[in-house]
Amino acid sequence: MSVIKKDYSRPLDIRHGRVDMGHGAGGRAAAQLIEEVFLAAFDNEFLRQGDDGAVFTPPPLPPGARLVMATDGHVVSPLFFPGGDVGCLSVHGTLNDVAMSGATPLYLTASFVLEEGFALMDLKRIVDSMAAAARAAGVPIITGDTKVVERGKGDGVFISTTGLGVVAPGVAIAGRNARPGDVVLLSGSIGEHGVAVLSQRESLAFETAIVSDTAALHGLVAAMLAAAPGGVRVLRDPTRGGLATTLNELTRQSGVGMVLEEAAIPVLPEVDGACELLGLDPLYIANEGKLIAVCAPEAADSVLAAMQAHPLGRAAARIGEVCADPHHFVQMNTRFGGRRVVDWLSGEQLPRIC
Amino acid sequence: MSVIKKDYSRPLDIRHGRVDMGHGAGGRAAAQLIEEVFLAAFDNEFLRQGDDGAVFTPPPLPPGARLVMATDGHVVSPLFFPGGDVGCLSVHGTLNDVAMSGATPLYLTASFVLEEGFALMDLKRIVDSMAAAARAAGVPIITGDTKVVERGKGDGVFISTTGLGVVAPGVAIAGRNARPGDVVLLSGSIGEHGVAVLSQRESLAFETAIVSDTAALHGLVAAMLAAAPGGVRVLRDPTRGGLATTLNELTRQSGVGMVLEEAAIPVLPEVDGACELLGLDPLYIANEGKLIAVCAPEAADSVLAAMQAHPLGRAAARIGEVCADPHHFVQMNTRFGGRRVVDWLSGEQLPRIC
Repeated sequence: MSVIKKDYSRPLDIRHGRVDMGHGAGGRAAAQLIEEVFLAAFDNEFLRQGDDGAVFTPPPLPPGARLVMATDGHVVSPLFFPGGDVGCLSVHGTLNDVAMSGATPLYLTASFVLEEGFALMDLKRIVDSMAAAARAAGVPIITGDTKVVERGKGDGVFISTTGLGVVAPGVAIAGRNARPGDVVLLSGSIGEHGVAVLSQRESLAFETAIVSDTAALHGLVAAMLAAAPGGVRVLRDPTRGGLATTLNELTRQSGVGMVLEEAAIPVLPEVDGACELLGLDPLYIANEGKLIAVCAPEAADSVLAAMQAHPLGRAAARIGEVCADPHHFVQMNTRFGGRRVVDWLSGEQLPRIC
Repeated sequence: MSVIKKDYSRPLDIRHGRVDMGHGAGGRAAAQLIEEVFLAAFDNEFLRQGDDGAVFTPPPLPPGARLVMATDGHVVSPLFFPGGDVGCLSVHGTLNDVAMSGATPLYLTASFVLEEGFALMDLKRIVDSMAAAARAAGVPIITGDTKVVERGKGDGVFISTTGLGVVAPGVAIAGRNARPGDVVLLSGSIGEHGVAVLSQRESLAFETAIVSDTAALHGLVAAMLAAAPGGVRVLRDPTRGGLATTLNELTRQSGVGMVLEEAAIPVLPEVDGACELLGLDPLYIANEGKLIAVCAPEAADSVLAAMQAHPLGRAAARIGEVCADPHHFVQMNTRFGGRRVVDWLSGEQLPRIC
């Protein structure tokens, strides 16, 4: 209830300042935080409108084009980890959800829940990382919101982002589209993001630094679709729950089964070693810069070649095949010649990984 | 790291169950929570796609039509208050931000940050309230996300919603459009939302129950635009920081001043009484179902009549006028014949009001 008298004619003291409840109250302190931290980093014509929403002219939509919206909350702990932070992650995570419809992302929005006492310096670092990721992806953050909760009622910063994208006519990508005989492709090695976050959280030092694979995948998707426009049936990024859980979601959605080849699934040796040490299975570890593609058999080779020609798909591999299976099992031919069922992640393996 | 073996073939125990970390891990527990709580309530063709984004065909956009996106985080405390809860608030708040561009809202997305241990019964109550608000507004929640943070790292539930809407050709509403001579209209009495939340938070019992005004305003906006298509220049909902702060934002954006008539600003007697008791000024209290409209002078009467003919604008009033002022002051002719400057809210008055 106290009206704190502050001198808003001076710039924020980013180096020593902390988030206080006034920064979320919608008054002058909130306006100053928005201008000097968020606007300064995200700067674009839409945010400069200064209204509660951002108005824009959509690109011309040819007949048959559709739009896609995706939203994702980001609560990763710790906020900074090898290879990234919650800021760039919140941009990549939502861009990737948009891209998994085969869409070209257009715009992003961002909603922040800040904890009282959070260092403005850390906030600025996170916001600058978001801005850099958005700029690199060519997708502006056009509107946002900031709330502040009392110390002990949040955890530094949570970021929810929402993306809007355009799906070109003729692109029909959805989790329910896999058919027996289709080929399962994976864009690269699995497990880096989860292991990088966990190693930071637990202060583990591995011999070789394992860094998150966090990256925006819409460029890779565009290259794949250009190579075989109608040949990609399903795209999905194996984040929480990892490759195993994501493939189980897909078999359930499509009403099919899958058979994987364990030897074909790329895992970096250092991730393999870390997982062994920690008692984790890389199949269940989150990724933030990888995708699974289910392709028509006749398109698989050209899609795979397009992936391997892209910087984010150099280690892409054919990892399995879709089959008919009324139980919707994901099975795996193991390195040792056996076959086992790869089940869903059933409890918590790694909480707050994204 | 423990793999909790649970029987997911049984429905969730909503009556006694609580959110656990597994509900945020992206595995089978998360899928069950989403199906039995979120999908069950929000049920629509887009969510049933079951993908990480929702694909839709936009309505035909005539030449000159634009789109608008708005996003808002909701951290109100307590989660339930007289007249509403964080669920319906998270729908109304974002719909209103979309509507303040003069747009027709099309779709909503929702991102949840849940605290471990939160009662599933309360979650269901909130989600059902969101679903009812979305249905009443005619705007489906087409995609969403759920994260879980450890006990003590959140506060029950935070909800970030994002809305997409269409602005018809010829509608040009923005905070920078007010001009000297324009008329300032207010759609009804101020202060109810903030006082309702505060009374619940502080367990105050007033003689007359004060309930939040939370409501979706896009229908009211449509009626106003139909009455005077080009006559509405600015729309804004006076939420955090209240009427006073919102008008100061507008004078700054438009580079003008304003003169208000205190006697013309509607305040319910019970709100006036509660504010006096609590040492609050209704001018700074949040509203969630009111709007300010700045209109061309020749359009003001017909816009006001359209507001008063709508259920959410029955108490609409002409509260002041825009003037030229290089200082961008909001001034007020008081009930007692004086004139004073109505400044921005400068610190925190009421934290976590929305």
